[in-house]
Amino acid sequence: MTSNASSVEVCFSPRLFKYIRTKGECIVVVTDVLRASTSICSALHHGARQIRPVGTLQEALILKEKGLLVAAERNGLKVDFADFGNSPFDFAVKKVKGQTIVYTTTNGTRAIELARERGTVAIGAFINLQVLSKWITRQGKPVVILCAGWKNQFNLEDALFCGALTESLLHPGNFSMECDSAEAALDLWSVAKKDILHYIDKASHRKRLKQLNADDVLDYAFTLNLTSVVPVLSGEHIRDVSRII
Amino acid sequence: MTSNASSVEVCFSPRLFKYIRTKGECIVVVTDVLRASTSICSALHHGARQIRPVGTLQEALILKEKGLLVAAERNGLKVDFADFGNSPFDFAVKKVKGQTIVYTTTNGTRAIELARERGTVAIGAFINLQVLSKWITRQGKPVVILCAGWKNQFNLEDALFCGALTESLLHPGNFSMECDSAEAALDLWSVAKKDILHYIDKASHRKRLKQLNADDVLDYAFTLNLTSVVPVLSGEHIRDVSRII
Repeated sequence: MTSNASSVEVCFSPRLFKYIRTKGECIVVVTDVLRASTSICSALHHGARQIRPVGTLQEALILKEKGLLVAAERNGLKVDFADFGNSPFDFAVKKVKGQTIVYTTTNGTRAIELARERGTVAIGAFINLQVLSKWITRQGKPVVILCAGWKNQFNLEDALFCGALTESLLHPGNFSMECDSAEAALDLWSVAKKDILHYIDKASHRKRLKQLNADDVLDYAFTLNLTSVVPVLSGEHIRDVSRII
Repeated sequence: MTSNASSVEVCFSPRLFKYIRTKGECIVVVTDVLRASTSICSALHHGARQIRPVGTLQEALILKEKGLLVAAERNGLKVDFADFGNSPFDFAVKKVKGQTIVYTTTNGTRAIELARERGTVAIGAFINLQVLSKWITRQGKPVVILCAGWKNQFNLEDALFCGALTESLLHPGNFSMECDSAEAALDLWSVAKKDILHYIDKASHRKRLKQLNADDVLDYAFTLNLTSVVPVLSGEHIRDVSRII
């Protein structure tokens, strides 16, 4: 541990976020591996200019009527009036290039709303793990990894991401940790990482996606380091800051 | 899985209890391994007639003035007016035999208050694991294991107990499970069980107890099956029901 060590804390549900122990300004990494945070990384990777997260369908509809593209999902399904659902594959199209995309999901965008009250909000997924970890390390601030969860409950896929990111942050010795959730996430990741797709087979959300015929995203969502985008919220928009030192 | 299978669900914090998926009446096992649930088992094991959990110090003080023995802890420390703190060793004395003990703790008794709204409340700890598991199996109802946590946050020791109890319930094939928290608890338990005292060394509450010179309870709290009591709430009191079929 170096003398300028920052702390890592993990929070397994938006409903537990107000009880975090990290004081003062911090970086909050919001993760919703299946599927919002993976999709936001994918959209920026495919050239979307920015993402505008909104909490309600009503806000999304108003912005749609103003001519913006809208991605909207509830209970795993694309909302009728939306241009996209929340599959990362939706955003791998020319249509997104240079565009602002309004985005609202069951769990992900609500977590972002909470996180913004505590500091800098970054978006984390397995597909941008390494570049995100490097970016966080350069900021020299405490970090809290916030799981979007599923309807406020703990979920395995987000917990695994917490473990993977914590491992990556601890590795260079720049971060310290005194958090049972982070310890648990590290142990779960150590069990899962040898064969993550096999491991995640037992996750309840994986079953939910299967029922919705939406589990085609699993390979993609659990592949490490497919992109070099670092999505960070600034004002009303999430943009890739990877090229900003 | 037999045709009369019941479900197991795990809830890592009282603040997430309202989001559990188990419907209808169930058995809620409240656990607060360090130290309330271990201490309740210990008190009944040493002959206390019954435990009366109360949520506030004010209620405890009123009952003390009526002549009852009071165990009361806040932030890990015994409250001034109380007869006992919440170390299980406090209850291994002749003073408790045949007595009613009023009990209020930082986390444990609040979890009991929540749990009672959903059905039968049982108290679980490593020291009564096996007998509790057998008793639950005989009831033929869904079970939710509720961690008291530490100030509403996830903690390792309670999560490990959830894993141990889930493993025990699943073993005979009487229970089914579709719960990410239970899956995670099982995996954590599988990592920890080979040397639980070594594992728990990293838990933040273990460090907290050490600072309070109260970590002498660790050996006791993590020893399996020291007692055959099954503490169950009935009306205002928790009593041992192990001899009731």
